[in-house]
Amino acid sequence: MKTLFVKDLKPGLEVTEFFVLRKKELKEYDGRRFLKLEMGDRSGRIDAVVWDNSDQLHGAAEAGEIVKVKGWVTTYKEVPQLKVDKMRRAKGEEINLADFLPASEKNPKLLYDDFRSVARTIENRHLRRLVDLLTEDSSLMERFRRAPGGKLWHHARLGGLLEHTLAVASICQKAAEMYDLVDRDLLITGALVHDIGKLNSYSVGGFFDYTDEGRLLGHVVSGDELIEQKIQKITDFPGDLALKLKHLILSHQGQLELASPVVPQTVEAIILHYADELDAKADAFSHIIKTQKTKGKKWSDWVRLIDRFIYFGED
Amino acid sequence: MKTLFVKDLKPGLEVTEFFVLRKKELKEYDGRRFLKLEMGDRSGRIDAVVWDNSDQLHGAAEAGEIVKVKGWVTTYKEVPQLKVDKMRRAKGEEINLADFLPASEKNPKLLYDDFRSVARTIENRHLRRLVDLLTEDSSLMERFRRAPGGKLWHHARLGGLLEHTLAVASICQKAAEMYDLVDRDLLITGALVHDIGKLNSYSVGGFFDYTDEGRLLGHVVSGDELIEQKIQKITDFPGDLALKLKHLILSHQGQLELASPVVPQTVEAIILHYADELDAKADAFSHIIKTQKTKGKKWSDWVRLIDRFIYFGED
Amino acid sequence: MKTLFVKDLKPGLEVTEFFVLRKKELKEYDGRRFLKLEMGDRSGRIDAVVWDNSDQLHGAAEAGEIVKVKGWVTTYKEVPQLKVDKMRRAKGEEINLADFLPASEKNPKLLYDDFRSVARTIENRHLRRLVDLLTEDSSLMERFRRAPGGKLWHHARLGGLLEHTLAVASICQKAAEMYDLVDRDLLITGALVHDIGKLNSYSVGGFFDYTDEGRLLGHVVSGDELIEQKIQKITDFPGDLALKLKHLILSHQGQLELASPVVPQTVEAIILHYADELDAKADAFSHIIKTQKTKGKKWSDWVRLIDRFIYFGED
Amino acid sequence: MKTLFVKDLKPGLEVTEFFVLRKKELKEYDGRRFLKLEMGDRSGRIDAVVWDNSDQLHGAAEAGEIVKVKGWVTTYKEVPQLKVDKMRRAKGEEINLADFLPASEKNPKLLYDDFRSVARTIENRHLRRLVDLLTEDSSLMERFRRAPGGKLWHHARLGGLLEHTLAVASICQKAAEMYDLVDRDLLITGALVHDIGKLNSYSVGGFFDYTDEGRLLGHVVSGDELIEQKIQKITDFPGDLALKLKHLILSHQGQLELASPVVPQTVEAIILHYADELDAKADAFSHIIKTQKTKGKKWSDWVRLIDRFIYFGED
Amino acid sequence: MKTLFVKDLKPGLEVTEFFVLRKKELKEYDGRRFLKLEMGDRSGRIDAVVWDNSDQLHGAAEAGEIVKVKGWVTTYKEVPQLKVDKMRRAKGEEINLADFLPASEKNPKLLYDDFRSVARTIENRHLRRLVDLLTEDSSLMERFRRAPGGKLWHHARLGGLLEHTLAVASICQKAAEMYDLVDRDLLITGALVHDIGKLNSYSVGGFFDYTDEGRLLGHVVSGDELIEQKIQKITDFPGDLALKLKHLILSHQGQLELASPVVPQTVEAIILHYADELDAKADAFSHIIKTQKTKGKKWSDWVRLIDRFIYFGED
Amino acid sequence: MKTLFVKDLKPGLEVTEFFVLRKKELKEYDGRRFLKLEMGDRSGRIDAVVWDNSDQLHGAAEAGEIVKVKGWVTTYKEVPQLKVDKMRRAKGEEINLADFLPASEKNPKLLYDDFRSVARTIENRHLRRLVDLLTEDSSLMERFRRAPGGKLWHHARLGGLLEHTLAVASICQKAAEMYDLVDRDLLITGALVHDIGKLNSYSVGGFFDYTDEGRLLGHVVSGDELIEQKIQKITDFPGDLALKLKHLILSHQGQLELASPVVPQTVEAIILHYADELDAKADAFSHIIKTQKTKGKKWSDWVRLIDRFIYFGED
Repeated sequence: MKTLFVKDLKPGLEVTEFFVLRKKELKEYDGRRFLKLEMGDRSGRIDAVVWDNSDQLHGAAEAGEIVKVKGWVTTYKEVPQLKVDKMRRAKGEEINLADFLPASEKNPKLLYDDFRSVARTIENRHLRRLVDLLTEDSSLMERFRRAPGGKLWHHARLGGLLEHTLAVASICQKAAEMYDLVDRDLLITGALVHDIGKLNSYSVGGFFDYTDEGRLLGHVVSGDELIEQKIQKITDFPGDLALKLKHLILSHQGQLELASPVVPQTVEAIILHYADELDAKADAFSHIIKTQKTKGKKWSDWVRLIDRFIYFGED
Repeated sequence: MKTLFVKDLKPGLEVTEFFVLRKKELKEYDGRRFLKLEMGDRSGRIDAVVWDNSDQLHGAAEAGEIVKVKGWVTTYKEVPQLKVDKMRRAKGEEINLADFLPASEKNPKLLYDDFRSVARTIENRHLRRLVDLLTEDSSLMERFRRAPGGKLWHHARLGGLLEHTLAVASICQKAAEMYDLVDRDLLITGALVHDIGKLNSYSVGGFFDYTDEGRLLGHVVSGDELIEQKIQKITDFPGDLALKLKHLILSHQGQLELASPVVPQTVEAIILHYADELDAKADAFSHIIKTQKTKGKKWSDWVRLIDRFIYFGED
Repeated sequence: MKTLFVKDLKPGLEVTEFFVLRKKELKEYDGRRFLKLEMGDRSGRIDAVVWDNSDQLHGAAEAGEIVKVKGWVTTYKEVPQLKVDKMRRAKGEEINLADFLPASEKNPKLLYDDFRSVARTIENRHLRRLVDLLTEDSSLMERFRRAPGGKLWHHARLGGLLEHTLAVASICQKAAEMYDLVDRDLLITGALVHDIGKLNSYSVGGFFDYTDEGRLLGHVVSGDELIEQKIQKITDFPGDLALKLKHLILSHQGQLELASPVVPQTVEAIILHYADELDAKADAFSHIIKTQKTKGKKWSDWVRLIDRFIYFGED
Repeated sequence: MKTLFVKDLKPGLEVTEFFVLRKKELKEYDGRRFLKLEMGDRSGRIDAVVWDNSDQLHGAAEAGEIVKVKGWVTTYKEVPQLKVDKMRRAKGEEINLADFLPASEKNPKLLYDDFRSVARTIENRHLRRLVDLLTEDSSLMERFRRAPGGKLWHHARLGGLLEHTLAVASICQKAAEMYDLVDRDLLITGALVHDIGKLNSYSVGGFFDYTDEGRLLGHVVSGDELIEQKIQKITDFPGDLALKLKHLILSHQGQLELASPVVPQTVEAIILHYADELDAKADAFSHIIKTQKTKGKKWSDWVRLIDRFIYFGED
Repeated sequence: MKTLFVKDLKPGLEVTEFFVLRKKELKEYDGRRFLKLEMGDRSGRIDAVVWDNSDQLHGAAEAGEIVKVKGWVTTYKEVPQLKVDKMRRAKGEEINLADFLPASEKNPKLLYDDFRSVARTIENRHLRRLVDLLTEDSSLMERFRRAPGGKLWHHARLGGLLEHTLAVASICQKAAEMYDLVDRDLLITGALVHDIGKLNSYSVGGFFDYTDEGRLLGHVVSGDELIEQKIQKITDFPGDLALKLKHLILSHQGQLELASPVVPQTVEAIILHYADELDAKADAFSHIIKTQKTKGKKWSDWVRLIDRFIYFGED
Repeated sequence: MKTLFVKDLKPGLEVTEFFVLRKKELKEYDGRRFLKLEMGDRSGRIDAVVWDNSDQLHGAAEAGEIVKVKGWVTTYKEVPQLKVDKMRRAKGEEINLADFLPASEKNPKLLYDDFRSVARTIENRHLRRLVDLLTEDSSLMERFRRAPGGKLWHHARLGGLLEHTLAVASICQKAAEMYDLVDRDLLITGALVHDIGKLNSYSVGGFFDYTDEGRLLGHVVSGDELIEQKIQKITDFPGDLALKLKHLILSHQGQLELASPVVPQTVEAIILHYADELDAKADAFSHIIKTQKTKGKKWSDWVRLIDRFIYFGED
């Protein structure tokens, strides 16, 4: 198991430890080949370099894999750098993914129990059958329990997708109580599955990244396909209900510009969209506050994605 | 009190009844002056005309006032028309505003009680003092109890502003439980006052219309000014708290394009914005379903404001 | 078969003929119920009314169906109107759909032969298997031969989808010769199937209309699902090839704002997009010229959809 | 008083001088804490570092304050760097703000005299009373005389706000002569106060920066509030005139996207908006020409804010 | 000369008068051909119809021409209509264009004298030679004296282009005094010629309309071509000066979206753009106030082009 | 002739070779003046520095010229740098432009023969005369044969404009066969001249850059002017044909936002626009694939201009 983290690497330290190999490039300088690497774990990233055995170590692992490394910490242009002497692929039993990826602060088991509890409140037998098919698909649920809710912006942590899914469902439950025309079961089912395509859109190797499918199809369509396949297995699933549920998935981004191929056209769809936005933004803002707020600091750094600073206020 | 409504006016009927005078225009046709009017009540609108005494009746009332009319129903180009013989201003005691304006289905007294109940949950003494100043301002609260939440799109009914305010507060209460960094009292106060400027933006005469202030300043700034004036009366209201509260009002539209002069820069502001959107859109969609859904009709008419049809689904 | 068309209906004429029932509404005027209808065929539309037996005839047919009507032509407000005495559903053998819907000027059989010829040029065995599965699906191909390419704007005629598909494939064939890096088989397959979802997006009853699926899912996603289902039936279809083909369908609108959930990310996708645009716009412009150009008229009427007039030039 | 400026700091020089402390950060390198600083004055900026006494000097001053520094100039990565041995807050009498901030080339006293001259041309007694209240508010005027017109883009210099205000008023005077329907007094008053909210939006410490209020409320609303407070003090200020004046302030950015909560709805408002734009852009372009034009150089550097180069032309 | 105007046509009146033939369409109703016309003059428009001799009168004149008409005023669907018995083309000497087209209130001779006065202030000999070439081109100046500044929105009246040109030049003269880096002669020349392409973009027949060139090339490019042709005739016109002047014409719309092919890249270009906007908008707002303001009316009708109402204020 | 290219410069190498002088700046460091340069050729760029004789060598050449350099390769901050001892302007006969600029892989003579072949297919005698005038203008054609199609994005190579022109013409020929209403000769002529203004927009010195005209007028207007001048020389060129041809040039960017002053208003214009887009994007994507695709690399680097990655697929 891992005991030393990137944030603790000081010049002069000898290191034998596991890291994620984030990037790998074979370069040449003045006729001599070397490997330029980037190592990381859940606490941060560090540049690394291999001068000897670069050809051999080049084949030792691919970017995205977790490796065991022997070397020592030096500095290059006054920035810490890891000089690597040995490197090999880690074995499954040697590592704990949680050491390399940020993770939800919540207990994954409890999160998943909550997911199943919400699922059990669905009374419509077709929708209930659908969510049962999902929860019975153990390999799918295995991935669901670990999946992040995003790559960088919101819920970018192991279990983040489950956290986000439950939060959206929670707001939708509230809304179902408030608006009498809402089909509660439809809305809750939509909340539970709206982002399920993200299981195919993000890879959870040593760090979170887009998959080819994530870029070429998008999580909205991947989710629609996944649910369509489950629906095909239910013999009498009503066509109108299938359309309405799939519409919830396809329209949940709220606008065409945000990659939904259709805009929300039902009251459930419009509620789901805003519940999704509310939780995504609340989590993103909260994450910035948690990681940047320090005593006396009233403003966050510039947040490029939303083109503004965030105000923390006086202490 | 009113007994006959626009929707019940059939050709041939003699009518002595109260209506809102929605429009009034003195015109001339072939040398003869006449008055072209539009009458209305909470059930609809009807064209009306005055041929005799047009000059005299022209001075009898202004558009927006409620009038007592004597005449009979004829048709013009196969559409019912009210031929008016007499018309005078109604007196206050003769009419019940609820006959002329659509109204919330909820009991206004209970709505206002709910508002005060939510207000009493605020523990921060400065914010509590502020909402107390508001509830102690009886003329303001009188207008609040009747004000619509909008002119046409959402909550366009007597008491609609209170309904909307409570719904937004309700979603914000839920959010305050979900996100631990949120300043609950600040968020709830923001929810209660975010649209208070609408009291100055809409006139509630015989029908809902924009006031000059509503168009020239906008409800966002009117609300900011109103709260600023109350804050001025509280001796030790913290400057940072005032900024954060006013920021909630000013940024609640969420984007500059939607008439907020600043974008949300606090976690409370971003939550308030989406809670506001969720309730506004859920109400607007619900209203369209309630007024347009009939047996076998699966789609609404075209909704110009959001450029789409709304799906009702199969019966 | 049909002999009398809407454009030939003159006041006074007695009529026993087939029409599409485009709209149907049961209304009441002064205590008397009547049916307000709209009839049409490929030559135009006419208002119609039923005064006697309105309750009974109300059940005779639904909007979108073709009916046999007995009545005579009168005028209402100086516009021709069809007064209907009898109305019943038409039987399949009595009618020829081509009398009611605009149709391609090209021979549908030859169009479809062309489609199969292009399909046979595909050499990649997986893609060839896929298009074979499509052409072997006779009910799908039956619908493909009749489907319009759009509701109003381009190729809005029976066989229009096939015309458009072949034109796009033709431009793509040219492009495949011009750009050496292009995967020709992939591009041609993409061209052949890019709009196949429109089979589920438009209804071809008495006139072209959107289906519920067309509005709630959109033709882009419907096409992706349809192709995914066919791919599932091919045992060794390479995953990377499936991604690239589905990406062609999903991205062919070119921009998120135009309802593609992803933007073109391969050279084939970017070519397909512009080939699609070129043919769609060339057909739309050509259609306007054909229907509006008359001697001495240099400009079209205003074309709202593209916010401009079209110039025909001097004769 | 200051004799040595940043632009004159050469390696090897011993320095005892006043600078603005622009940034301050306590960092740790290899177990040793140090202070990373940025110093500046009206001629430029220089990095600085404190190795000894870093903890103690950390408390000596805050970013934004003016400090007296003892140290000497070295280089770091070939860029000049100031190694600081001693640092203390400057006292008010030791410094002249004009040494640290760029300033208008015009005489501040004359600028302010001009402002009062324009104010005295206002004949409407209510508007005249209002501007009198402003000029009688000596602490406000004190800040007005020094305030910049912007942080970076236009009139970013001491006295810049006054320069800009007078230029806008000057164009408005011209317009009032040209367009006969214009209410001259209203327009001139609007010109004089349109940017007065910037007094609360920018801090004029050692350098120009946004205040919390500047970011959370925006200068448009701050100006509206300030004028509203003055109007409250005038007993018979006509409501319609107040609306029109405040509308000038609120709409002067011209578009919602540019942070005006309402668009210009009066002829005075539309004129004020373009007068404001004309002067702002003319000053920004002029500033770039003045600072970048050298012999033989025909084009400016890329100007990111307006996404273009500026052409100087041939010499 | 014309004595009777459209606004004075009452039912029953016999009419022998000149009108603009605005539209002409040969139609058939129930087997009988008739001409549907629209007549107009500077006071308004009226529908007209020819029942007898429709074939013959169809060839009597084309839309856009001025005709002499004999007929009488009737009503159709309660709207006045002119029944035409005779119609022929008007002869040049019979008519005064000012009767048919709205015209500037200013004396055209004085306007043109002003134009020449401004032109004479240009000292740069190349630019002076250029404007001299323009004023020496008598047929061009003849058209300039009558040309409108727009079709509908601003300065849409005879002489309007000259009015607008002088107003823009006037603001630019003011700006040249204010900003010391400005090349005054360049800016004033740019102001004088910036819209000269409109001479080719609008036809001034019986009413203002776009020419084919106006639509296909646009007034910006037409102006650039016209000035380029004049510059070609001046032997030693400096290339850099020509570029800068043509840049003023091409960029004066200020943004690509507004049909300038380049954005303003010189200080003169940015000033010209805003001077142009200021005058165009001030005239458009003024025109709406002049034509719509009546006693007690505080707001204009909806102004579609700028998506707002205009506020007149209290009387 | 050149034998050593930038990509081959290794530290320690002595160099006597020709390079493009891309940038030149006289700087001062610690009281000593030096020249900071950038050298380049078709294989890449390298920083260079002159310490001795900097004043004298400063006058030796200007940025954009090709120079002969004597020096040796050193490193600065671990990046290769060329230390220059001598530098002089190259003479015309010493150099081959193809050594300094990327060039089309196609034979320039054959490309130009193709251009003339296409030109000879034009049958309309006016258009044929026009293209003959172009091909007879030998200095123009000389520049056409070398001109790039763009600065950075597509066809940025010697002969690139001709390649692009022929590709667009080729797609237009295909379209002319497909759409029967198209005026083939007009469309092909439009394709051949649509980008001819680029001859004046890009300088082809040592590297591709915008000319002043390219920035101040834009290639669209430069092309329109060039063709207008040729048309002026043809006595009976029909006015309507001239308008239609110039409209093709002016509208070929397709949208105002993309710097066309008018949108496509003819069927030929809309086809030309999409043919242009198709080829430009296909070339840009192809170029990225050719320069970035390596074994095992499935995705391109981020392509900022189109805000996406490009997918290469599996090997």
